[in-house]
Amino acid sequence: MTAATFTKTPRRTQYVPSMDLVPQVLEGRVSAIARMISRAESAYPEAADALAELYRRAGRAHVIGVTGVPGAGKSTLVSALIKALAVAGHKVGVVAVDPSSPFSGGAILGDRVRMSDAAASSGAYVRSMATRGHLGGLARATLEAVDILDSAGYSPIVIETVGVGQDEVEVVTAAHTVVVLSAPGLGDDVQAIKAGIIEIADIHVVSKADKPEAVATVAALNGMMALGAGRTDTRWRPPIMAVSSVSGQRLDELVETISAHRAHLEESGELASRRRSIARTRILGTARQMFQRKFDEGDDGLERHVDAVVCRTIGPTMAARRLLGWEEET
Amino acid sequence: MTAATFTKTPRRTQYVPSMDLVPQVLEGRVSAIARMISRAESAYPEAADALAELYRRAGRAHVIGVTGVPGAGKSTLVSALIKALAVAGHKVGVVAVDPSSPFSGGAILGDRVRMSDAAASSGAYVRSMATRGHLGGLARATLEAVDILDSAGYSPIVIETVGVGQDEVEVVTAAHTVVVLSAPGLGDDVQAIKAGIIEIADIHVVSKADKPEAVATVAALNGMMALGAGRTDTRWRPPIMAVSSVSGQRLDELVETISAHRAHLEESGELASRRRSIARTRILGTARQMFQRKFDEGDDGLERHVDAVVCRTIGPTMAARRLLGWEEET
Repeated sequence: MTAATFTKTPRRTQYVPSMDLVPQVLEGRVSAIARMISRAESAYPEAADALAELYRRAGRAHVIGVTGVPGAGKSTLVSALIKALAVAGHKVGVVAVDPSSPFSGGAILGDRVRMSDAAASSGAYVRSMATRGHLGGLARATLEAVDILDSAGYSPIVIETVGVGQDEVEVVTAAHTVVVLSAPGLGDDVQAIKAGIIEIADIHVVSKADKPEAVATVAALNGMMALGAGRTDTRWRPPIMAVSSVSGQRLDELVETISAHRAHLEESGELASRRRSIARTRILGTARQMFQRKFDEGDDGLERHVDAVVCRTIGPTMAARRLLGWEEET
Repeated sequence: MTAATFTKTPRRTQYVPSMDLVPQVLEGRVSAIARMISRAESAYPEAADALAELYRRAGRAHVIGVTGVPGAGKSTLVSALIKALAVAGHKVGVVAVDPSSPFSGGAILGDRVRMSDAAASSGAYVRSMATRGHLGGLARATLEAVDILDSAGYSPIVIETVGVGQDEVEVVTAAHTVVVLSAPGLGDDVQAIKAGIIEIADIHVVSKADKPEAVATVAALNGMMALGAGRTDTRWRPPIMAVSSVSGQRLDELVETISAHRAHLEESGELASRRRSIARTRILGTARQMFQRKFDEGDDGLERHVDAVVCRTIGPTMAARRLLGWEEET
């Protein structure tokens, strides 16, 4: 070993500009996809133009949201769903938003490992989003990950998320087909958390159909729907399916029901109005988050307006209008 | 009665432009003050310039926030406080934010009637704000009412509010001196609601000091403060006062303590930093509310951006930036 060895510049992975990754993502190169999603997660300003370009190229994928309380068996269902969809010839993408994900520093769960197995054996792409350090931008990052996979030709794309919290609800309402998973035998207190997500279901799945309590859960869901729960789409009555991921029972039927829902969206014209409402939710969610973040981080613009209000040159309403850019500063 | 009687234009109270009310408000004319506050409550666009002008003329009043859970005896305390302040020679203004106010359609309470009596006999001006139909603008309207009274020469101005809800906390943190009222013998569950407001107290008052349980309440507050509760102002240790509004016990001392706190704010320089933080809170609160309201009511600007995102001309992030006015449209 010579002295030169020590002074040699260590070999580093070169930073590829995000715009240069775009053609690779469009070709479906997995390493480029992984990098783009990481940059979306970190909200690199440098990646903004590339993400915008990929958004423009996306829009073909069918997006399936799978949600349910912790313990309902989401990861198991998603694993089984990946296999069933892959067998049916689809190139499946999965974006998992789950605080217990091993990738984001949570507990390593058997379910998650099983999901990776399913992915490996089927050619699906599975990505877990970190749920920390997002400054409220989890929904934005997750939906950008969906855009990236969409532009790369993946379809359907499954978003897996726990059905608790504003971010999670924002994410799942950005899906074209929302599958809400209920588990038989979970306490009422746990199920109650789902009150808000029961209403956005396009398909109800009762997991662990092999358990005897599953019959009661199906009946309870039927009761809730009779009370008028349901999305604005009155022409689709959400079916309730009892599924056993263990035995594979009725999983093919779930795949068929998802296809039937997609066909319904296209034929009824509901797809267009759902796309509008998804776009609206994404814009407002992003704007709210950007606005909040700007001032949480301390902003010179704000302090200038504070000065003016403290000196009583202008009132708080005018300051707010200027802050929002709705009023020119004089 | 002739036919002419029926065709005669009925006599109406003429609408006085808000700008014409400004000099009358500054002179302290009560009818003009009442009208301006009503216009602030209704968020008349026509009144915006007048309110801005009154804000610029305000800034001399000392603002006292009085808060505490329902049942703590706020209205009784405020009534007694009005009398004591009036006796000390002050022209007192009161803005009450209380869902149970008879003026806003709630129950007619003996406390509230007593407060009006106190006002009538002391020359104070008392105004209850309606807590409904504000579209989230309750804090804005309440603080504009304070500006109006301030510009009319009232000082101190007491804001009375229940210590629950984001709006109420936003209102009370806009006071220079925050008095938090605790009642002896209320259940722990009720007191727990106050966890957030205990921390913003400049003065603690334990009401119903004639009750034997008052001693325990004072001890509990001392304990909480020992745990480090308190505002950022480390040079003022919030005193804890046991007061009986019934007997008038120690009310003069409360008035003196409020004066002492004002003197402390001025001498320590804390008043300047508190004014900055009040301005900051008002600007951000107003901006958030205006932003939310604009899109809740449906906005053409938003729909134009939704169109662009649905057609994939631009991505949601760019749309959000344009919506916020942070980016020019091309």
